[in-house]
Amino acid sequence: MSNKKKIIIDCDPGHDDAIALLLASRADNLKILGVTTVAGNSEIEHTVRNARRVLDYAEVFDVPVYKGCNHPMMHNLYRLTGAIIHGEDGLGGPDIPPPVTPIEKEHAVDFIIKTLRESDEKITLIPTGPLTNIAMALIKAPDIKDNIEKIVIMGGAVYTPGNITSAAEFNIYVDPEAAKIVFSSGCNIYLNTLDVSMKAVFYNEDIENLRAQGDKVSVIVAELLDFFASTHLDHFGIKSCPVHDALCVGVLIDDSLIQYERTYLDVSVNDPLTRGETVADLWGITGKETNCFISVKVDRDKFVNMIFDHMKKPYKR
Amino acid sequence: MSNKKKIIIDCDPGHDDAIALLLASRADNLKILGVTTVAGNSEIEHTVRNARRVLDYAEVFDVPVYKGCNHPMMHNLYRLTGAIIHGEDGLGGPDIPPPVTPIEKEHAVDFIIKTLRESDEKITLIPTGPLTNIAMALIKAPDIKDNIEKIVIMGGAVYTPGNITSAAEFNIYVDPEAAKIVFSSGCNIYLNTLDVSMKAVFYNEDIENLRAQGDKVSVIVAELLDFFASTHLDHFGIKSCPVHDALCVGVLIDDSLIQYERTYLDVSVNDPLTRGETVADLWGITGKETNCFISVKVDRDKFVNMIFDHMKKPYKR
Amino acid sequence: MSNKKKIIIDCDPGHDDAIALLLASRADNLKILGVTTVAGNSEIEHTVRNARRVLDYAEVFDVPVYKGCNHPMMHNLYRLTGAIIHGEDGLGGPDIPPPVTPIEKEHAVDFIIKTLRESDEKITLIPTGPLTNIAMALIKAPDIKDNIEKIVIMGGAVYTPGNITSAAEFNIYVDPEAAKIVFSSGCNIYLNTLDVSMKAVFYNEDIENLRAQGDKVSVIVAELLDFFASTHLDHFGIKSCPVHDALCVGVLIDDSLIQYERTYLDVSVNDPLTRGETVADLWGITGKETNCFISVKVDRDKFVNMIFDHMKKPYKR
Amino acid sequence: MSNKKKIIIDCDPGHDDAIALLLASRADNLKILGVTTVAGNSEIEHTVRNARRVLDYAEVFDVPVYKGCNHPMMHNLYRLTGAIIHGEDGLGGPDIPPPVTPIEKEHAVDFIIKTLRESDEKITLIPTGPLTNIAMALIKAPDIKDNIEKIVIMGGAVYTPGNITSAAEFNIYVDPEAAKIVFSSGCNIYLNTLDVSMKAVFYNEDIENLRAQGDKVSVIVAELLDFFASTHLDHFGIKSCPVHDALCVGVLIDDSLIQYERTYLDVSVNDPLTRGETVADLWGITGKETNCFISVKVDRDKFVNMIFDHMKKPYKR
Repeated sequence: MSNKKKIIIDCDPGHDDAIALLLASRADNLKILGVTTVAGNSEIEHTVRNARRVLDYAEVFDVPVYKGCNHPMMHNLYRLTGAIIHGEDGLGGPDIPPPVTPIEKEHAVDFIIKTLRESDEKITLIPTGPLTNIAMALIKAPDIKDNIEKIVIMGGAVYTPGNITSAAEFNIYVDPEAAKIVFSSGCNIYLNTLDVSMKAVFYNEDIENLRAQGDKVSVIVAELLDFFASTHLDHFGIKSCPVHDALCVGVLIDDSLIQYERTYLDVSVNDPLTRGETVADLWGITGKETNCFISVKVDRDKFVNMIFDHMKKPYKR
Repeated sequence: MSNKKKIIIDCDPGHDDAIALLLASRADNLKILGVTTVAGNSEIEHTVRNARRVLDYAEVFDVPVYKGCNHPMMHNLYRLTGAIIHGEDGLGGPDIPPPVTPIEKEHAVDFIIKTLRESDEKITLIPTGPLTNIAMALIKAPDIKDNIEKIVIMGGAVYTPGNITSAAEFNIYVDPEAAKIVFSSGCNIYLNTLDVSMKAVFYNEDIENLRAQGDKVSVIVAELLDFFASTHLDHFGIKSCPVHDALCVGVLIDDSLIQYERTYLDVSVNDPLTRGETVADLWGITGKETNCFISVKVDRDKFVNMIFDHMKKPYKR
Repeated sequence: MSNKKKIIIDCDPGHDDAIALLLASRADNLKILGVTTVAGNSEIEHTVRNARRVLDYAEVFDVPVYKGCNHPMMHNLYRLTGAIIHGEDGLGGPDIPPPVTPIEKEHAVDFIIKTLRESDEKITLIPTGPLTNIAMALIKAPDIKDNIEKIVIMGGAVYTPGNITSAAEFNIYVDPEAAKIVFSSGCNIYLNTLDVSMKAVFYNEDIENLRAQGDKVSVIVAELLDFFASTHLDHFGIKSCPVHDALCVGVLIDDSLIQYERTYLDVSVNDPLTRGETVADLWGITGKETNCFISVKVDRDKFVNMIFDHMKKPYKR
Repeated sequence: MSNKKKIIIDCDPGHDDAIALLLASRADNLKILGVTTVAGNSEIEHTVRNARRVLDYAEVFDVPVYKGCNHPMMHNLYRLTGAIIHGEDGLGGPDIPPPVTPIEKEHAVDFIIKTLRESDEKITLIPTGPLTNIAMALIKAPDIKDNIEKIVIMGGAVYTPGNITSAAEFNIYVDPEAAKIVFSSGCNIYLNTLDVSMKAVFYNEDIENLRAQGDKVSVIVAELLDFFASTHLDHFGIKSCPVHDALCVGVLIDDSLIQYERTYLDVSVNDPLTRGETVADLWGITGKETNCFISVKVDRDKFVNMIFDHMKKPYKR
C-alpha cells in the first residue's frame, strides 16, 4: 500500500481542468486512479477527448480516461458561456495533438462506483466540472459514501457574485440538481469557490515566467493560460487569469494553500433568479448541521510557485 | 423471433404492482425480459423481495428480478402513505412465502440499459412505480431511447385531484424530477392516470367472484384486493378497489381497454403546492409539440374480465 | 332598509363583464352600490370607460363607476390574450356611444373600503376581473372583512384545463398574488370557475332569440355575443359562447343556478408551469380547513332564460 | 421654498428606526413632512405608538405620524426575530413615556400618495422597515414616481450573509413581494445594506461617550443602544451594536458617509432557500439596465460623530 493519496478526477477540460490534470500527474503524493469526464465547459465528446490528449501529451499514458454523462440531469447542456471562455472544442489555444491512448469503454459512473467499492483505502474525488457524474454515482450506489475520503469540488460563490448569473457560478449552475444531491449526501465536502479562485490568479508576467521554463508541459500550460486570459479579458474585462480547477489538486498537495470555514450549504434550484446559487449559512442562523467546508482564503504566491515547480517535473508512474 | 411483445416491468410491489406482474406472466402476447424494482410503495429491500416472491409463488421462476434505486433522485423516500395503503412491507394481507429464486446481482438501471442495447427488437417499458430507474437509465445512456418501443406509465392525474396532495398522484409525487426527465426525453409515452385507474375498480362482488375461481393465483389476488380495498376504505373512504398498475399491462394485452388523447405534458417541480402535478396542455394553448398520450376512458368490465381470465391460467414459459 | 342585496361589482369590461353589469342593473333583488374597475381584459383606461358607457347606454346613470389599479400587483399587465378575445379596447363589436356620466374621482380601492366601513348591512363583492383591487383593499384595510357578506368570483379552473396556460384561467393568471391574498383572507368566497362557465354557453340560436327581443339592451347584448363568439371560435375553436362573468350575478338572482362544493383552495405562484392555477383539495387530503365554495354544476337553460328575461326589462332605480 | 430636503420616513420603530427619527429631527438640512409606520420589528399598534412617543419625547410635536399596513402583502407578519431583537413592544429598554400627540387618522399609504401629488418639490422617501407601504402606494398610484426624488432604503445584503436566513436580511425577508415591486418601479433607489450597516457599529465606549453628553435625547439613545447591543450579543454573539436605519438619514445629512455602486438588483421570492435575498448583478452579467445604487463602504467614525453632534441639538421647527 503506497503512501500516495488515491484520487479520481472528474472533469470537463477546459483549460483549468487540463492544468489540474497536469498538476495532479506531477504530484509526488497523489495517485490518479482514473479520470472521468462530464459535459460542462464543452460537450462530452470534446471533454473526454481533451482529457485524453492532455494526458497523452504529458506522457501520462497509464491513467485511464472514462466518458460520463453527456448532459446535466434535468435539461440540456447550457452551452454559450463555455464556448466563449474555452473555445469551441473546450480547449482553445495551443495545438495539442490528438490522443493516442484509447478512451475506456466503461461508463464514468460505473468506474467511480466500482473503484470505490473495490478499494482497500478511502479515495478522494476531485470534481472540477458539473456534478452530474458524482450525483449519479451517489443515487445509483449510496454505499460508496463510506469509501469516499473527501470530495474537493471547484464550484460556487459565497462572498462574491456568480460568473454565469448574478448569483451562480458556472459548474453549479449547469447542473444545480446534481449539486444539491451531492451537498445533501453526507459526504465530507471541501468547496473551492470563486471567492478564492478569482484571487489565485496568474498575471501576464507569471505566464511569461512559466513559458520561460522551456519544457514542453510548462510551455503548453503557458499557451493555455494565454487563451484563457484573453477570453477572460474579453468577456469579463479581467486582466488576470484564474486557474480555478487546479486549486482542488493544489490543496491536496499542500493543505496550507487554502483556508476553509465549516458551514451548512444548500443549492437554490427553484427560483430562476438564484438557480445554482450556493447558499451558505455563514452565521449559523438556520440551526442546521454543517455539511461542508468552504474556501475563505488562498495563498496566491504559493499556488503560482506550485504550478511552476510541478510543470517542469517529468511524469513518474 | 417470437411474436410476443418484449417488456420490462419496473415496479415497487405493492398490491397493484403484484397483480400487474401476475397478469403479464399469464399474457399470451407478452414476454417479460426482466422485472426491475424501485423504492416507492415501500423501501427497495421490500419491493425487490415482493417482486421475487410473487413471481415464485406463481411459478414464474425464469423471469429475473433486479434491485434498482433505493431512494428518489433528490430526496429521501416519502414513506407515510405507502405504509398506510400497502402495509409495512409493501404487500400486506396474504401470507406469501419467502422467495426461493435469488435476486440478480446487476443493478436494475444497468439491466435496463444493457437489455435495450443488445435487443434486436424494440422493447416496451412498463414503469408502475416512481420513475427513478427509468430516468437514471435515460441520463446515463440516452442512446437507449432508439430501442424503446413505448413507455406505458402508471402515474399522474389530469382531470381528477391527486391522491397524495391536492394536485399530485403518488408515483409522480415521490420522484417528480425523474418524471420530468422521462417526459422530456422524447420517448413514446402512454400515461395511465388516476382519471382512468379510479374508474377501473373492483367491487366486493368482483373480488368474491375472483376468489371463487379457486386456483392458487386467483385466491391470492383476491386476498391482495381484500387488503387493498380495506386500506382504501380507511384512508380515502372509497368502497371500491382500484388496481392501478395492472392497467398498464392490460392495455398491452388488449389495446381497446383504454382510450388515449395526445397532448403536451410537463411535471411541476418548483411549487410545493403543485409539486408532482402532471400538467397537460389539453387545449393546445402552449403551442408545444405533444409528447405523450394520456388516458381518458377505460372499459372497466373488460378489465375485470381480463383479470378473471388470466389469473386462472397456468404460467407458460 | 331595502330588501335588496347590496353589491359592488369589480370588473374589467370585457364582453361578459358588460353583460354582468346589465344583468345586475335589471335584477329586482340587487342594489349596485358602485362599479369598480381594474386592468385585465384591457388597460384600465379602457375598462373604466367601458363600464361607464355600458351603464349609460342602459340608462343606469345613478350607479357610480370608479377607476382602480392599472396593473397587477407584481408585474405589468399580460395583454395579448385580452386583446385577441375582447378586441383592442376591450369591448369589440357593437358601436356603443361614449359615456356621458363622469367617472368618479375616488380610487376604486378607497371606494370599496369606505363603502364597506360605512354600511349598516353586509355587502357582497362581485369581482369578475383580476383580483388586484380586492387584494389591495384587504391589505390596506383588513377590518373590512367583517362587513363583506360574500365574494362571488369569476376565475380559476379545477376539473378542466386553463384557458391561458395548461393550468391557469385568465383572471387568476393575470394577478396570481392578488388571488392568493384573497383566498387566504378568511372571507366567505364563492368561486365560479371555467368548469361551469364553459358549460353555461350561448349557442347561435340563443343569440338570435335574444336579438329578436328587439329592445335596445337585448340587441346590444346579442351584438356583444356575436363578437365574443367569433373570437372564441377563432382562438379556441369553440362553436359556442361562454358568458363567464354574468354567472356571478346570476347566482345572486337565483341561487339554484349553480351548485357548489366546499373545499380548501390555494393559488400556485412559484412555478411558471402552474402559476395562477387554482389548486383545490377536493379529497380533503391536506387536512386544511375549507376556505371557499367552488362551482361544480350549472343549469344552462335557467341561465340563458334569465338573460332573456332580464335584458328586456327597463332599469328601475 | 425652503432649502431643506423634504423627506417622509416610513419606519417600524424599532431601536435603530427611533434613532433615525431623532437624527432626522435634528438635521438642519432635512424637513420631515411626516412619519409613516408599518408592521415589521413589531406589530403596527406598537410601531406607530413608538414613532409617536419617540418624537414627543424629543419635543417634535409638529411632525405627524400615520399608521400604515398591519401585515406584509402576502402573509402574516414574521414575528419571532423582531421580538428577540427589539423586545415585545418593539422598543425594549428605556422607559419612554406614552405619546401625548394623537396619531393621524389618514392611512399611511394615502398620506404618502397625497403628499407626493401635492408637493411642488420632489420628496425623498426613507423606508427603514419592510417595504409594504411604499409598494402599496406605487401600485395604487404609479404617477407618484415622478415626484419621488429618491428612495433611501435600509435593507438587503449583497456581500455578506443575511441576518434572518442564510441569504436574506430582515426588512426584505418580511415582505419580499413588496421589495420586488419597489425595485422594479423605476424609482431612483439607494440601498443601504447589512454590508455597511454591520460595519457602522457603536462600541461600548461610544455608547458611554454618548450617555456622558448628559442631555435627555443623548441619554435615551444610549439606553436604546444598551438594549440593542445586549440582544445582538445574545442572539448573534456580536459585541458591537449596529444602528442600521440611522444610516439612511445620515447619508442625506452628509453624502460622503456612504459610497455606492450602481447595479441591477432583483429580489428572490420563489425559492424558500433564497426568499428575500437581494441579488445584485455586480459584474453586469445579466445585461439588464441598472436600477439602483447599493452601499459598498461606510465611514464609521463620521457616522458615530454625526450621532454625537446631532443628539445634543434641540429640535428646531
